[in-house]
Amino acid sequence: MTRFNDWRDQVFDIIYKTDTKAGKAFDVLLILSILLSVGAVMLDSIERINVRHGYWLTGVEWFFTIVFTIEYVTRIWVNPRPFKYIFSFYGLVDLLSIVPTYLALMIPGTNEFLVIRLLRVLRIFRVLRLSTYIHQANFLLSALNASRQKITVFLFFVLTLATIFGAVMYVIEGPDNGFTSIPKSIYWAIVTMTTVGYGDISPHTSIGQAIASVVMIMGYSIIAVPTGIFTAELANTLRGEKALELKCSGCGLRD
Amino acid sequence: MTRFNDWRDQVFDIIYKTDTKAGKAFDVLLILSILLSVGAVMLDSIERINVRHGYWLTGVEWFFTIVFTIEYVTRIWVNPRPFKYIFSFYGLVDLLSIVPTYLALMIPGTNEFLVIRLLRVLRIFRVLRLSTYIHQANFLLSALNASRQKITVFLFFVLTLATIFGAVMYVIEGPDNGFTSIPKSIYWAIVTMTTVGYGDISPHTSIGQAIASVVMIMGYSIIAVPTGIFTAELANTLRGEKALELKCSGCGLRD
Amino acid sequence: MTRFNDWRDQVFDIIYKTDTKAGKAFDVLLILSILLSVGAVMLDSIERINVRHGYWLTGVEWFFTIVFTIEYVTRIWVNPRPFKYIFSFYGLVDLLSIVPTYLALMIPGTNEFLVIRLLRVLRIFRVLRLSTYIHQANFLLSALNASRQKITVFLFFVLTLATIFGAVMYVIEGPDNGFTSIPKSIYWAIVTMTTVGYGDISPHTSIGQAIASVVMIMGYSIIAVPTGIFTAELANTLRGEKALELKCSGCGLRD
Amino acid sequence: MTRFNDWRDQVFDIIYKTDTKAGKAFDVLLILSILLSVGAVMLDSIERINVRHGYWLTGVEWFFTIVFTIEYVTRIWVNPRPFKYIFSFYGLVDLLSIVPTYLALMIPGTNEFLVIRLLRVLRIFRVLRLSTYIHQANFLLSALNASRQKITVFLFFVLTLATIFGAVMYVIEGPDNGFTSIPKSIYWAIVTMTTVGYGDISPHTSIGQAIASVVMIMGYSIIAVPTGIFTAELANTLRGEKALELKCSGCGLRD
Repeated sequence: MTRFNDWRDQVFDIIYKTDTKAGKAFDVLLILSILLSVGAVMLDSIERINVRHGYWLTGVEWFFTIVFTIEYVTRIWVNPRPFKYIFSFYGLVDLLSIVPTYLALMIPGTNEFLVIRLLRVLRIFRVLRLSTYIHQANFLLSALNASRQKITVFLFFVLTLATIFGAVMYVIEGPDNGFTSIPKSIYWAIVTMTTVGYGDISPHTSIGQAIASVVMIMGYSIIAVPTGIFTAELANTLRGEKALELKCSGCGLRD
Repeated sequence: MTRFNDWRDQVFDIIYKTDTKAGKAFDVLLILSILLSVGAVMLDSIERINVRHGYWLTGVEWFFTIVFTIEYVTRIWVNPRPFKYIFSFYGLVDLLSIVPTYLALMIPGTNEFLVIRLLRVLRIFRVLRLSTYIHQANFLLSALNASRQKITVFLFFVLTLATIFGAVMYVIEGPDNGFTSIPKSIYWAIVTMTTVGYGDISPHTSIGQAIASVVMIMGYSIIAVPTGIFTAELANTLRGEKALELKCSGCGLRD
Repeated sequence: MTRFNDWRDQVFDIIYKTDTKAGKAFDVLLILSILLSVGAVMLDSIERINVRHGYWLTGVEWFFTIVFTIEYVTRIWVNPRPFKYIFSFYGLVDLLSIVPTYLALMIPGTNEFLVIRLLRVLRIFRVLRLSTYIHQANFLLSALNASRQKITVFLFFVLTLATIFGAVMYVIEGPDNGFTSIPKSIYWAIVTMTTVGYGDISPHTSIGQAIASVVMIMGYSIIAVPTGIFTAELANTLRGEKALELKCSGCGLRD
Repeated sequence: MTRFNDWRDQVFDIIYKTDTKAGKAFDVLLILSILLSVGAVMLDSIERINVRHGYWLTGVEWFFTIVFTIEYVTRIWVNPRPFKYIFSFYGLVDLLSIVPTYLALMIPGTNEFLVIRLLRVLRIFRVLRLSTYIHQANFLLSALNASRQKITVFLFFVLTLATIFGAVMYVIEGPDNGFTSIPKSIYWAIVTMTTVGYGDISPHTSIGQAIASVVMIMGYSIIAVPTGIFTAELANTLRGEKALELKCSGCGLRD
């Protein structure tokens, strides 16, 4: 029995950790499988390829679904706290990565859900969580976290501006120029303020173009705000980290 | 009489402040009402929905107009300085939020003004002014204020560039390629410099495309200027705040 | 004779300086005249307005041309070193602001040059040079100057990338998809890298779209470079200015 | 024999170095030749010009190919370690700059490869490597290098977002609105997140436009991340450099 538990522990180390050679190999293999299966799902959605190679791609899909099913079951089996895993974020992603294929087989008309399998890409993050990149990601996240409130204020401000300018343009340009409703005008305002500018809706009247110019210059300028917030916070975090490495004996000065 | 004044004070606290439980509940209810009524105005502008559910949406609109009217009257009534409120920014926004509905009923042909009701979104800011986000907003505003002059110089510079490049493109591309007048060419220059790029007007001649490339690279590069200004100011403000927390006994140095 | 010189000195102070009341009034009047005359030139280029109000606008144009001519002659006359003024940047701008109107009268077929009058907007800068905004502008210019070399390196790098990616797309997409020549493909690459994205030329093949995605993400990321350069320099200049206000007696430390 | 070696050393100094007068002249001549030959390749790709001046441009091309061939052979000949040069990055670029012209002559149907000659622009970098701009470029590269890991994390995050939002839009909008396959939808997501916004594919349904708005605001905000990373690193490097110039006798503090 102990021997069996030993074996289970070893599998746990391979699947969940990266400090052994086998663990690292497993991670590399897993990332490759994820990328290949995601690639297969993508190719399958291209009609030209689907028609010609659909049969072959279905085979690939089933192969990876079975592999991921075995992996999922093993993860539950070797985990000392299986329920915590099942209901964790990554546990649900793992489940959603395999369920749609079975569903599409059993219940006809659920092909639409097959796209859910693309959530597999999120699984890569679990593997990366264990890698050296995690430190950098944490760094960015802590700066983002520090600027969370400021960015919320900013986004709320942007949405209010978009609502007001959208309503103004709805009145000025009107349905004849593509501004068929207030929500659509707000959509236009967001397209313009973020400097995306599809051009599917664009002002045609002179006053509309003048107001659009104001919206554009506004959007172009206020992009400075999130950038400024994040940069200032990041510079702060970065300086804090560096300061810890220095030691100033003469005074208590840190910055 | 004192009892009545007490009651009025209590209503004042609920409506204007947030430190009581009832005051907080009122704020949440107010934000919900604002969002719902704004949503109704938006949906009403979509023709497909208007045709089918217009009757129902009119009811919703009247319900909220009456609610906001009662609120407006109460605000005036409980305020010790009612005129100061009426002519304040938020007092005018409150009035503009309800007047259009009555106007449209009494004077036919004023339906166009109904869109003014969307100014209701601005009312959310009053509620937020009392929340924890206000500190962050003030922070951003103080950085913006510090960089106000620099950004004015920048905007003036951008508009001058847009005017000159607009005029140049008007001569080079001409009315046949969509550059029908100098104001329209300036509109194009702004669309291009802000990197929005609708594509409703775009250069067709080789020289025009070459100059457009210069305008684009210019716009792409000078976005650095507002960002730089704001970031530097924000970093400064942020550092100032942090520095106050540190105390350097040895010297009077703060930065 | 001295009295005459006194009078000339007084006119010089009014036109060239801003520290007297009359000097300030003159500046405000000049800016208004410039804006009005520029507005008239712009309106005149709109065909609909030209047809209807052309006669009236020509009158406005002649009025301002004569006013600016008198101003130009006076500037030369009261200046102790007239030739230095005539061949200075602003002297040439002043001349170019009035010459086209006379030219169009005397030599037929020079109407195209009338657009040169828009250079009048540059005259506003002379007036601003004397105002409080000049300090802020100098501040920005000194930061821009400090980052000049770095931005040159960056622009050269961007142009090289645009050339190579333009050539690649020319081969992949080919003339059938709008990439009719290498210069046009380079134009597309610049439109894409600067995130303008008109959509007048866009990739149609799968490989083309994949490479376009790389170009976009590249352009989206490297905008960080000019911003970073300018921000860092500006923060440096800003800090330098603040540091001068602090005095640290204990040590020679400035930063 | 020594005299011959002396002569070879002198040629080496002229071609590979810039500290002699002849070396600088050679560099200027080389950059001019590169720019002219690149210009010729570009002009040759414009059909209108090709038809009219093709014969003349072929002559120019052959002239520069022969010049560059002589230069390439000389570079090998005077280099004390010829193989190191041949297989270096610039050695391969030099070879690729001349081979396509010969290939197109000898093997018919290889005209497509003629575009490879545009790699000549890369040769300019070798010359610049020896110039004063190299210090600035190194500066930028060291900041980029320091932020390499953070930017990798960021790019991976952006690609994951693009995949998920692309898949969502593929389901919502469907092939009828231009989202014909998942890869194409991902292409749309990248076009939108990077704020390029061609408009060749754009959402038509209300839900699609709502999600697109989220994608745009996300893209508009997260551009702050690479900018912030790079700016913070650059500011750090810049400060480090400045700090070295200051000497603080009282303490070992550097930052």
